[in-house]
Amino acid sequence: MAQNDFSNGLSEAEQHRHALVREKHEQAVALLREHHIDCWLTFTREGSDLLLPYVTGSDYIVGLSALMLFADGGSVAVVADYDTGQVDGLFDRVLPYSLDWREPFLETLRERAPARIGINTSESNFGVDGLTHGLYRTLVGQLDRIEMTDRLVSAGPVSSLVRACKTAAEIERMRRAGAVTLRILDDLTGMVRPGFSEGDVAELLHERMQTYNVAPAWDAAFCPTVATSRGDFGHSPPGTTKIEPGDALRVDVGVVYEGYCSDLQRTWYFRKPGETAPPPDIAHPFSVVREAIDRAMDLVRPGVRGMDVDEPVRRFVADAGYQFTHALGHQVGRAAHDGGLLLGPNNIRYGNQVQDEIAEGMVFTLEPSVPLVALEENVVVTRDGCEYLSTPQREITLV
Amino acid sequence: MAQNDFSNGLSEAEQHRHALVREKHEQAVALLREHHIDCWLTFTREGSDLLLPYVTGSDYIVGLSALMLFADGGSVAVVADYDTGQVDGLFDRVLPYSLDWREPFLETLRERAPARIGINTSESNFGVDGLTHGLYRTLVGQLDRIEMTDRLVSAGPVSSLVRACKTAAEIERMRRAGAVTLRILDDLTGMVRPGFSEGDVAELLHERMQTYNVAPAWDAAFCPTVATSRGDFGHSPPGTTKIEPGDALRVDVGVVYEGYCSDLQRTWYFRKPGETAPPPDIAHPFSVVREAIDRAMDLVRPGVRGMDVDEPVRRFVADAGYQFTHALGHQVGRAAHDGGLLLGPNNIRYGNQVQDEIAEGMVFTLEPSVPLVALEENVVVTRDGCEYLSTPQREITLV
Repeated sequence: MAQNDFSNGLSEAEQHRHALVREKHEQAVALLREHHIDCWLTFTREGSDLLLPYVTGSDYIVGLSALMLFADGGSVAVVADYDTGQVDGLFDRVLPYSLDWREPFLETLRERAPARIGINTSESNFGVDGLTHGLYRTLVGQLDRIEMTDRLVSAGPVSSLVRACKTAAEIERMRRAGAVTLRILDDLTGMVRPGFSEGDVAELLHERMQTYNVAPAWDAAFCPTVATSRGDFGHSPPGTTKIEPGDALRVDVGVVYEGYCSDLQRTWYFRKPGETAPPPDIAHPFSVVREAIDRAMDLVRPGVRGMDVDEPVRRFVADAGYQFTHALGHQVGRAAHDGGLLLGPNNIRYGNQVQDEIAEGMVFTLEPSVPLVALEENVVVTRDGCEYLSTPQREITLV
Repeated sequence: MAQNDFSNGLSEAEQHRHALVREKHEQAVALLREHHIDCWLTFTREGSDLLLPYVTGSDYIVGLSALMLFADGGSVAVVADYDTGQVDGLFDRVLPYSLDWREPFLETLRERAPARIGINTSESNFGVDGLTHGLYRTLVGQLDRIEMTDRLVSAGPVSSLVRACKTAAEIERMRRAGAVTLRILDDLTGMVRPGFSEGDVAELLHERMQTYNVAPAWDAAFCPTVATSRGDFGHSPPGTTKIEPGDALRVDVGVVYEGYCSDLQRTWYFRKPGETAPPPDIAHPFSVVREAIDRAMDLVRPGVRGMDVDEPVRRFVADAGYQFTHALGHQVGRAAHDGGLLLGPNNIRYGNQVQDEIAEGMVFTLEPSVPLVALEENVVVTRDGCEYLSTPQREITLV
């Protein structure tokens, strides 16, 4: 049994949750003021709203809940009596109900009279589109009673930055997620050998995740994605192809550490007898991808649009004779694909997700992977540039 | 490395997924006909729609997806090209897009011309309220172009039964989830002793889950819930109270096995020197709860309303001098709280969730737990009654 520190009567995990939520609430209130939204309302119940963890530090709530942060200060949580443990100490006022949530909720709105009420809805950014249509209708049914329905706006301008711009505590968790992932991949290097199938590699990585007490960052059937240089590297489960000398091995994997994800790709090469280095058809694209990531690092900084990082890097890779068809990078956070601004091409597939500006605290993948080579790093945006969240791969790992 | 059977080129896990989805699609089509809904449309993308696993067997999809089952036969999946692995072999037609989903989607609807299109929205049942409000607006924006917006209805009458009425493959997974849970609880009986804190018990149960390669069925901070008879047993994390001789110990825990949950409560008693049985203040309420579950078992069968199971059992417990304030039971499935029909009292808190009729294949908890005693069993509704999914607790476990 571990020895926990229970100062203030809270377990260490609870203290971490409270510290994180305080940072996020403070950030949210500043953004509410900046964007002239008077109240950020997370209206949720069991099974819904992917923004809940930013508001309570947990994705667990059972009863219908109205969680409100106000631009002019103060916060109110209307929750079922059995859910108060999720919000006690985090909201200035907790109004528990045992049968009916409507009166304490409407009374709070009447009293505070917010002119603009931001709700968790967005057509373009799935990461802040948490409100279900059923709950939207329930909400409107009540707001009609106090003639406030026309005050509803999307909280997107606030919630997208609450989600995207990581605070110190969030960045620390993401660094640890990266460190554990590299540890797992180092273990793999020591254990994998020709004859292992892609499925064997996936199983070995799952076993290492258990050893380090972390979970896969996305569906375990696809996390890791594993393919030899003869296999198909994409969104399909690892197959039966066995590694042979002369193969490259590509892995895309991430883990969750205290709610925050990593998302990394790495490449190995299995030498034939007498070989001391990978052959040019693998070494050359690797050097191109490596150089492309260095170039991207030079471009990522606050104020630059996503498409303006993607375009020159994509051109560099194309000029070198290769291509990647997906976006150069996506955001990472509580989800491996965290939504919002992408480093991607300006086309209909990515729409307006590439036109916003990079901001401090955002975390991006850089993954200009091309056929035969998988390489993906995670970087956090600083005041005037960006830095790696974990040690990058500079050479193909030889086995 | 495990040896897998890769007949048909699919891994064992993929074969299980396909078999399950075939059962669920067949069930859904029969329900569409019965409820006169011409098309069940799951309109989703990464991060949304808790009904996706019933349609594809997985909660993983990245791009915007329109997954359609038709009452008059045939199914069509419009998905991003990198998501085809999720639907290949499961839908009659897979229409991959690389840039724009709108044309293949609208063309399918124009061609099939469904008069009533069911979408995943519900105010009352969170388990089938998967469509986000942002995606609803996106959908309506397109349906307006082909003048089909007024054909939208809730898929609830179909999707709620697809979710609730378990097929043979689903029941088998739930039996296994129950069996693993009992194994874990048996291990606990052998290991726990006075001096362990509630937090220690939780940690031990998490360690056993790892050993058996299963995950907690709800937020790990609350799964298990652990309390001594001197602690507060509810929706709060296990605390620092240490077990002493003369205490009861209450645990509420569930695990996920291949996507399906268990949700069980058990009670132990720690004897003082010389004791051979629990004292009456624990033994008596246990016998009442035990009898209450037996009475509930006699009432649960197809055609009975949820409230009509709760009412006599609640009255029996009250007549014995105890009370439980929550519902007698909820449904279990892919979620530990699976939504839909409850075995609960007819009041404003539970609303119309208690008025529907029980149907074959539904799985309910029975949990008339009272102060000092935690006991919860999981039962599956059969053609003319119900049966346990795992061996029930008939006596307080003595330590």
